[in-house]
Amino acid sequence: MDCTYLTNYELYDIIAGGDKEELASLNLIELQGWVRTNRDNGSIGFIEFNDGTYFKNLQLVYFKENNGDLYEKIKAVRTGAAIKVIGKFVLTPENKQPFEIQVQEYELLGDVDEDYPLQKKRHSFEFLREIAHLRPRTNTFYAVYRVRSVLSMAIHEFFQSRGFVYVHTPIITGNDAEGAGQVFDVTTKGKDPNAFFGRPVNLTVSGQLHVEPFALAFRDVYTFGPTFRAENSNTPRHAAEFWMIEPEIAFADLNDDMQLIEDCIKFCIDYVQTACPEEMEFFNNFIDKDVKNRLNHVLNSEFRRMSYTEAIEILKKAVADGHKFDNSKIEWGMDLQSEHERYITEQVVNGPVFLIDYPKEIKAFYMRQNDDGKTVAACDLLVPGVGELVGGSQREERYDVLKAKMDEMGITESLQWYLDTRRYGGCKHAGFGIGFDRLLMYMTGVNNIRDSEPYPRTANNIKF
Amino acid sequence: MDCTYLTNYELYDIIAGGDKEELASLNLIELQGWVRTNRDNGSIGFIEFNDGTYFKNLQLVYFKENNGDLYEKIKAVRTGAAIKVIGKFVLTPENKQPFEIQVQEYELLGDVDEDYPLQKKRHSFEFLREIAHLRPRTNTFYAVYRVRSVLSMAIHEFFQSRGFVYVHTPIITGNDAEGAGQVFDVTTKGKDPNAFFGRPVNLTVSGQLHVEPFALAFRDVYTFGPTFRAENSNTPRHAAEFWMIEPEIAFADLNDDMQLIEDCIKFCIDYVQTACPEEMEFFNNFIDKDVKNRLNHVLNSEFRRMSYTEAIEILKKAVADGHKFDNSKIEWGMDLQSEHERYITEQVVNGPVFLIDYPKEIKAFYMRQNDDGKTVAACDLLVPGVGELVGGSQREERYDVLKAKMDEMGITESLQWYLDTRRYGGCKHAGFGIGFDRLLMYMTGVNNIRDSEPYPRTANNIKF
Repeated sequence: MDCTYLTNYELYDIIAGGDKEELASLNLIELQGWVRTNRDNGSIGFIEFNDGTYFKNLQLVYFKENNGDLYEKIKAVRTGAAIKVIGKFVLTPENKQPFEIQVQEYELLGDVDEDYPLQKKRHSFEFLREIAHLRPRTNTFYAVYRVRSVLSMAIHEFFQSRGFVYVHTPIITGNDAEGAGQVFDVTTKGKDPNAFFGRPVNLTVSGQLHVEPFALAFRDVYTFGPTFRAENSNTPRHAAEFWMIEPEIAFADLNDDMQLIEDCIKFCIDYVQTACPEEMEFFNNFIDKDVKNRLNHVLNSEFRRMSYTEAIEILKKAVADGHKFDNSKIEWGMDLQSEHERYITEQVVNGPVFLIDYPKEIKAFYMRQNDDGKTVAACDLLVPGVGELVGGSQREERYDVLKAKMDEMGITESLQWYLDTRRYGGCKHAGFGIGFDRLLMYMTGVNNIRDSEPYPRTANNIKF
Repeated sequence: MDCTYLTNYELYDIIAGGDKEELASLNLIELQGWVRTNRDNGSIGFIEFNDGTYFKNLQLVYFKENNGDLYEKIKAVRTGAAIKVIGKFVLTPENKQPFEIQVQEYELLGDVDEDYPLQKKRHSFEFLREIAHLRPRTNTFYAVYRVRSVLSMAIHEFFQSRGFVYVHTPIITGNDAEGAGQVFDVTTKGKDPNAFFGRPVNLTVSGQLHVEPFALAFRDVYTFGPTFRAENSNTPRHAAEFWMIEPEIAFADLNDDMQLIEDCIKFCIDYVQTACPEEMEFFNNFIDKDVKNRLNHVLNSEFRRMSYTEAIEILKKAVADGHKFDNSKIEWGMDLQSEHERYITEQVVNGPVFLIDYPKEIKAFYMRQNDDGKTVAACDLLVPGVGELVGGSQREERYDVLKAKMDEMGITESLQWYLDTRRYGGCKHAGFGIGFDRLLMYMTGVNNIRDSEPYPRTANNIKF
């Protein structure tokens, strides 16, 4: 029999293209994929079929009157089974589905045992986390992971199209970039911690210190890779392993940095909405009814800028006017909590806003000190719905200023190579970090980081 | 003064475009970048200038007769300094450089100390490894890291354009995919190994076992991320940390797998040669005089296929005919060494060749057993110049066969979730792994993995 082997994606693509000749040429189609559901009424049966190439299912139809034996065989196929069918392509403009495949031949490629956990009913996200190897077969996780892939590509396209060089900064390192201390150690079994590398090493918390020297060679660079925190905090926004994007730009200051952040976020929103319309529609209908609105609002906003000091004044006034925060003790020098950030971006600005010029005590050592002696040239991008989405800064390029800070922290010796970049043709430069998983949560409306990663790693959770 | 801020890349791009009006409009140009070399003859001086955006330098020219003070200042600028200049754009079709910038204003942005290690002379690669934070400023490493970035993008474009979904498989894992045992352990300081995750964990050696379940949801998927081996082998081809590409395709067998490998390698070669002509020219001139020939030969070859068994017969005959290998004891069941692989691909085939159907004892447990009961459906791609470049296989999809192998290895319990994918709608599937750093070495002619990674990690080497 002369038939064409096609995928879900290819079939929907042909339909969308609307080329009449191409459509007319479709007759017998071969498909290989999985049964999402199978139901029949005794004389006619329907399989919702998906081969993984596209969010939308295909409808397979089988008739008893055509072939009774085949009918009985197909009718017995369970949800989750891998099957191959050959069938006739039929346009059905009057139905919900634009077309259907009327099955003529059928083969069971891979059966499912009866304990298959993904039966046709709504499963809780908590339950699905226990079957991380199967959950990508559900609508929600299919959509999340496809958007994760597309958003990764958006990041690469954005930076590569602007001439940025992608740098694979190391995962195993002797440094602790943030000085945070909550790091995972790396050892070799049964040996002392110095055995392999000659000194204690740990998993990176940031690629920034390693990528900065590359900005002094290539001007514009970025990292995109996994980073780690051994933080035992059981929140929906913390994971032990997560991916970070860290661009670094030379001959650039905080304003250039903020412009790049704004361009990057808008590019990503536009890219994902264009590449994943079905998935975004699904998120908007079933995960977060505000997600499309929220993204489009950001896309069409000019990102505002406000100093940390001004934000503190606004928060103080809000408290004085009776607004209740969990922490209502507002004072200059404090680290803002999510509730404060969200008040600023949602109630005050009603849109994306950069807070800039933070007190130096609450920011990292490498951020450039402002002339006031009290603040650093840092920026946090706050967006409605989540609060902080991106953090960036201009870097301290002055050798003496940086060395004084590093001496204070006792890290000069181990990071001498980093400090040295300031006396070997250093220049004004800036950069930022985006937590990729959190960006994905923002884009999809998924509100637990455990549901944004393929196999999330959190305290006491590493079944897979 | 009305001037245009441009980069090396933009200037060369305008020249290459050859638009006469655009060229005529170039008058005063502002540039910010680094001094590669500076020389003068007392009345005229030349700076080789690069701002990191393009492989080729620009020539800055400064004249004593125009401004004696400025001349003295610029003349004193050292190699490596960051500078800003404003100058007049002048076409110089009679010179080696197609244009020059005649400096009118100058500012020192970042000076260099006198101990700057990158003086104008040839440095050994060994020496440059000691200054990994500075070596991207040399021609060789600038070219290597730019090609590394472009090759990464080639990988993403190849797979995304074919509808593959990019999956971030975990770095921290409880499994040891290859059963090799040479893994790095991950712990939290001063605590027992179970403290954070509730069980001992290690750094991944492969994302394959984690990505396979995603192929059963999306059909075509790939990973691209860091992997680790705690192998204390001091060779030019082994690093403790390296990046791997691991695609996995459902409803596909070993032939589909080999076709995908061939397409992927050819796509990468073509992509890099198109995107990095200057860098490839440089490699061909200064690193490996055969690299372009070798790549073009592969690009224009149909990849041959040969069984392991046939290869053994050929090697036996070669030894009988007097060919000397370091290991000349050729017998069926042996693991082929690089010398054997190179003999096959260079002397016998004279081109790329897949060896297929290896003895099951020397291959991984997840590879599909052939009907002969002795071999598995594995393929190694051998290419002239290096030997093995890619390894792949069809996966064992039969539950009972796979379980028997896993039982034998004692890994069934910890990998029950993996095994379960064979009884929940499993299907024929295949995949492969490319060591990204080795692919980069192959593309550039660089012959030590320490020179292909930004900050290589090998035994006793983690200065940065």
